Amino acid sequence: MTIDWIAADWGTTNLRLWAMSGRSPVEARSSDQGMASLTPDQFADVLAQATDGWPAVPVIACGMVGSRQGWVEAPYAAVPCPATPRMVAVPGDPGGRPVRIVCGIRQDAPADVMRGEETQIAGLLALDPDFDGIACLPGTHTKWVRISAGEICNFKSFMTGEIFGLLAEQSVLRHSVGTGTCDPAVFRGAVSDAMARPERGYAGLFQLRAESLLADLDPATARARLSGTLIGWELAAARPWWLGCDVTIIGAPALSALYAEALTAQGLAPARMSVADATLAGLAAAHRQFLQG
Amino acid sequence: MTIDWIAADWGTTNLRLWAMSGRSPVEARSSDQGMASLTPDQFADVLAQATDGWPAVPVIACGMVGSRQGWVEAPYAAVPCPATPRMVAVPGDPGGRPVRIVCGIRQDAPADVMRGEETQIAGLLALDPDFDGIACLPGTHTKWVRISAGEICNFKSFMTGEIFGLLAEQSVLRHSVGTGTCDPAVFRGAVSDAMARPERGYAGLFQLRAESLLADLDPATARARLSGTLIGWELAAARPWWLGCDVTIIGAPALSALYAEALTAQGLAPARMSVADATLAGLAAAHRQFLQG
Repeated sequence: MTIDWIAADWGTTNLRLWAMSGRSPVEARSSDQGMASLTPDQFADVLAQATDGWPAVPVIACGMVGSRQGWVEAPYAAVPCPATPRMVAVPGDPGGRPVRIVCGIRQDAPADVMRGEETQIAGLLALDPDFDGIACLPGTHTKWVRISAGEICNFKSFMTGEIFGLLAEQSVLRHSVGTGTCDPAVFRGAVSDAMARPERGYAGLFQLRAESLLADLDPATARARLSGTLIGWELAAARPWWLGCDVTIIGAPALSALYAEALTAQGLAPARMSVADATLAGLAAAHRQFLQG
Repeated sequence: MTIDWIAADWGTTNLRLWAMSGRSPVEARSSDQGMASLTPDQFADVLAQATDGWPAVPVIACGMVGSRQGWVEAPYAAVPCPATPRMVAVPGDPGGRPVRIVCGIRQDAPADVMRGEETQIAGLLALDPDFDGIACLPGTHTKWVRISAGEICNFKSFMTGEIFGLLAEQSVLRHSVGTGTCDPAVFRGAVSDAMARPERGYAGLFQLRAESLLADLDPATARARLSGTLIGWELAAARPWWLGCDVTIIGAPALSALYAEALTAQGLAPARMSVADATLAGLAAAHRQFLQG
């Protein structure tokens, strides 16, 4: 298969690359040379090294590489806007390759931003052109995105993933919260409690530590309760984004499974799509856009 | 004034010492040799060096020095219990000084623990023997403590201080949340919103970052909103601990002022006491207890 373009998901902490033949990946590479570890003058060299041996074909990149602190700022498009990717060019075709960076999306009221997820949404619509409903993209900053008639109508971000990481790994709860999978029944109970009475969930956080000290609370149970509490708060706050809606979850498998579990308990039947599939389909849509000039 | 005992507040990250003459401090010292930086065999030497030049008088210590990871474990007393301090002896009178460590307090249902705050409560009762009401001790892990007839009846901990620190200093909000004082009106508004609809406050966290990116949100305003949201959640969850109660706040000045502001907006007239006054009074009560054998 001929490599005719390169797909790049260039985020804060990682760079993932695929040599592409049309819509099919031929070879994948990844490194930890994310945006946050680079100064603007280093991106061209990093890309050249990371694509060594691949032909001088166009590169389509998404993610924080297009932020103000990245390589070239790709200004936010404002909602409502077509889900079709917009791009900016990196000046000078570095390494002899045209490089395009997908623009993030902004919402002015209430203020919100995304950068990277817009590509996954373009991918969702490339794979399912008639999609009309809500995309839920769980991650460090989970996004709920309303999509209709091929447009991104509006969206809402939550810090659930980042807060979970801080509490589970850096707070006093790190001594009490284990790794591994969550017990589904414990998780669902915590989701339900947090949705019904969010303030009770807040009261229950230090209690995880105390139960661990006084009653040998199982670390896996503590993890399920912490995760369920945070996702329950998010579902309570995001109710207009899922109640009576068709929801497709696009995220990493374990985290997507938790959101699916929580939404199913609310009577929904969410669909699932992998991040890699959505990202590649979105970058391929951007590449077709690039070819059309 | 004759130094007849030594008061020690030996916490996770700091050691504070006072050479005492009865209830009066003669000299104060402090260092960063907190419990977390020491192995059990180092405490005696650290105490000897930190009290160099002071006479070989009894030492009364409170705080995490008495935890399982500390010098000598001072087992928790269980509520309900007298507010009068209980102590354990460090074996062998290190450095020729009898050393006593004040015991923490536990509550089995719902599970909760304190270690250090019990000494401040003993101090509150030493300074105001008829106190009957709620002590609110804001800090890394804020405690609400019900006190009646000289006893600690029950208590409730919240992670507000620790969560604020993690969000303001380590999350994506660190770019948007400033230092300095909080605007009282913004703070009160955020408290009120979070109390009325806790899930809305959750939805507002990432919005601080987005408003900062898109609308140049003032970092001091972002700080007031974040602080008000977390304290609002706490007040919503702690309602039974303050509604219709006499509340005395014992904490650092800036943080105590925020809790006072929030409670005053709920129609309360909270009293205030400094941490140092309460701690020293509590350790002095423990010292009198020690003298009585």
